[in-house]
Amino acid sequence: MVIAKKWIYAKAFSGYPTADNFRLEEETLGELKEDEFLAEAIFLSVDPYMRPYMLQYPVGSVMIGGQVAKVMESKNPKFPTGSYVHGNFGWRTHTVCTPSVGDRKPYVLPDFGKEPLSLGVGVLGMPGNTAYFGFLELCEPKEGETVVVSGAAGAVGSLVGQIAKIKGCTVIGITGTDEKCEWIKTIGFDHAINYKTADIREELKKMAPKGVDCYFDNVGGITTEIVRGRMNTFGRISVCGIISSYNEERAKVIDPQRDFVGKQLKQEGFVVSRWTARWMEGIEQNLKWIQEGKMKYRETITEGFENMPKAFIGMLKGENIGKAVVKV
Amino acid sequence: MVIAKKWIYAKAFSGYPTADNFRLEEETLGELKEDEFLAEAIFLSVDPYMRPYMLQYPVGSVMIGGQVAKVMESKNPKFPTGSYVHGNFGWRTHTVCTPSVGDRKPYVLPDFGKEPLSLGVGVLGMPGNTAYFGFLELCEPKEGETVVVSGAAGAVGSLVGQIAKIKGCTVIGITGTDEKCEWIKTIGFDHAINYKTADIREELKKMAPKGVDCYFDNVGGITTEIVRGRMNTFGRISVCGIISSYNEERAKVIDPQRDFVGKQLKQEGFVVSRWTARWMEGIEQNLKWIQEGKMKYRETITEGFENMPKAFIGMLKGENIGKAVVKV
Repeated sequence: MVIAKKWIYAKAFSGYPTADNFRLEEETLGELKEDEFLAEAIFLSVDPYMRPYMLQYPVGSVMIGGQVAKVMESKNPKFPTGSYVHGNFGWRTHTVCTPSVGDRKPYVLPDFGKEPLSLGVGVLGMPGNTAYFGFLELCEPKEGETVVVSGAAGAVGSLVGQIAKIKGCTVIGITGTDEKCEWIKTIGFDHAINYKTADIREELKKMAPKGVDCYFDNVGGITTEIVRGRMNTFGRISVCGIISSYNEERAKVIDPQRDFVGKQLKQEGFVVSRWTARWMEGIEQNLKWIQEGKMKYRETITEGFENMPKAFIGMLKGENIGKAVVKV
Repeated sequence: MVIAKKWIYAKAFSGYPTADNFRLEEETLGELKEDEFLAEAIFLSVDPYMRPYMLQYPVGSVMIGGQVAKVMESKNPKFPTGSYVHGNFGWRTHTVCTPSVGDRKPYVLPDFGKEPLSLGVGVLGMPGNTAYFGFLELCEPKEGETVVVSGAAGAVGSLVGQIAKIKGCTVIGITGTDEKCEWIKTIGFDHAINYKTADIREELKKMAPKGVDCYFDNVGGITTEIVRGRMNTFGRISVCGIISSYNEERAKVIDPQRDFVGKQLKQEGFVVSRWTARWMEGIEQNLKWIQEGKMKYRETITEGFENMPKAFIGMLKGENIGKAVVKV
């Protein structure tokens, strides 16, 4: 008999989450039925999307999210005991999973070689594929172009900048501390702007004298308004997230439509699940780039399942560098 | 010796243009050189784009614009005397044209059959191609989808709605008078909203109960903010113009990026010259639809070259229905 711990969405989010939005509960899991397996969480993901997405769920739901887990017991030959899987099981230590149920299927992790399993919720999982597909498919960067990435020291942004470098672009990252600015330059960004202390508009004039061709947007709001104003004709914008407004009112911005006409800009928002059919392509390519030394990653690991809310809140406040992960 | 009349951009635009922004001048034209021809304007176009575009030109320039003209004399065998041409000659009665100079080449009008020559600056010219390419290429409408068009009784919007009907869509037009609402319904729009008297949000809920798939935007601003809020996942927005802000400050709108992510929207702005290589395709298709009775057009014709400013100002104020044209 297995007792699972799980974090419950105890009170609806309003503004920045606090401890009282969450409640830790226990649940006794039953016997496995045919096709099911029992998974034990090893690494859990905390991601920005959880903040807006939870608003769609009733209070009392388990917090949503992906995890790397070990199969402890199985009645499904595709998920043998001892294998490592990725599953969207939510904030739980143990899960009885019926793989045939639900949209977002669990999968056995491919061989990561010498790389740690935690990457299954990072560069070799959802954030990695978000960067890979969301940037390459929607921005269609060309060699010699100038790329701006907001949220540049985060799990996704830090990878987008490196993929842009691999594709031969000049890359400017926008992030919120000097430490983050330093770090993204060590992994290959050409320039970094601390939006809390610098004038983004003036910096972009200097760093991108020929204008901006691609913008990978993690933040929205005023930052995006300013970057859009520096874009070139036929510029492409991939909208991944809107961290600037997850915990606050959406900003009022200058009507963007004029820039779209005058510069013939293209903008597309996305949710990475649209590339589910190509999921392993993204993981394999990112792993290859890591093994070739072309892609670096960084994780901010919080120890202890009991610290899930703390890790989540810290991530929303930008305290992490790279991917925020919780180790059970 | 030919004396041309021409309208000069006498004072920079600020707010709605008035008579003192323009000055009528005369110019004596010289002898034709090799490859040149002399054209006499028959129909001149006044279009919304002229308002923002003129800001790029110094005061003292001739007002820009397209016209249907007759070749009166020619030293270029491709433009024989007596032929009818379209040229971006500006607001002039007579022009000596060197076809090899400039980006936007003059062309001999194809045979319009029984249709009037004025259509060469309308449905069988730039506005027609704006509707044809800007809608079909960027919105990619599918049968059964719901399409919203703003500026729906204008030269472009009225055609977009009809093309959407030809493609099997449900079409909602947004425009500014009850008379315009009535007219667009007579040419096939399923629904019409008078944005000056109706609540667009509430009307769209009723008229588009399954949401909006495509939005062809001529206006920007608050109208666009509201339409975007009713769009479906994978909705497409083609941004053609921003009439709402040509003569006024750009409105502040709610940061649109969240809608883009959540609904995976795609938006692209355009200038119709990007389809120059396919120009005749658009004219031929629109002519075919007219001859088949599938596309109606309407013109608001102002008589007299001396009334160019009046026609232009009236068009910017929405006094025209369909295409605003000046007959010399």
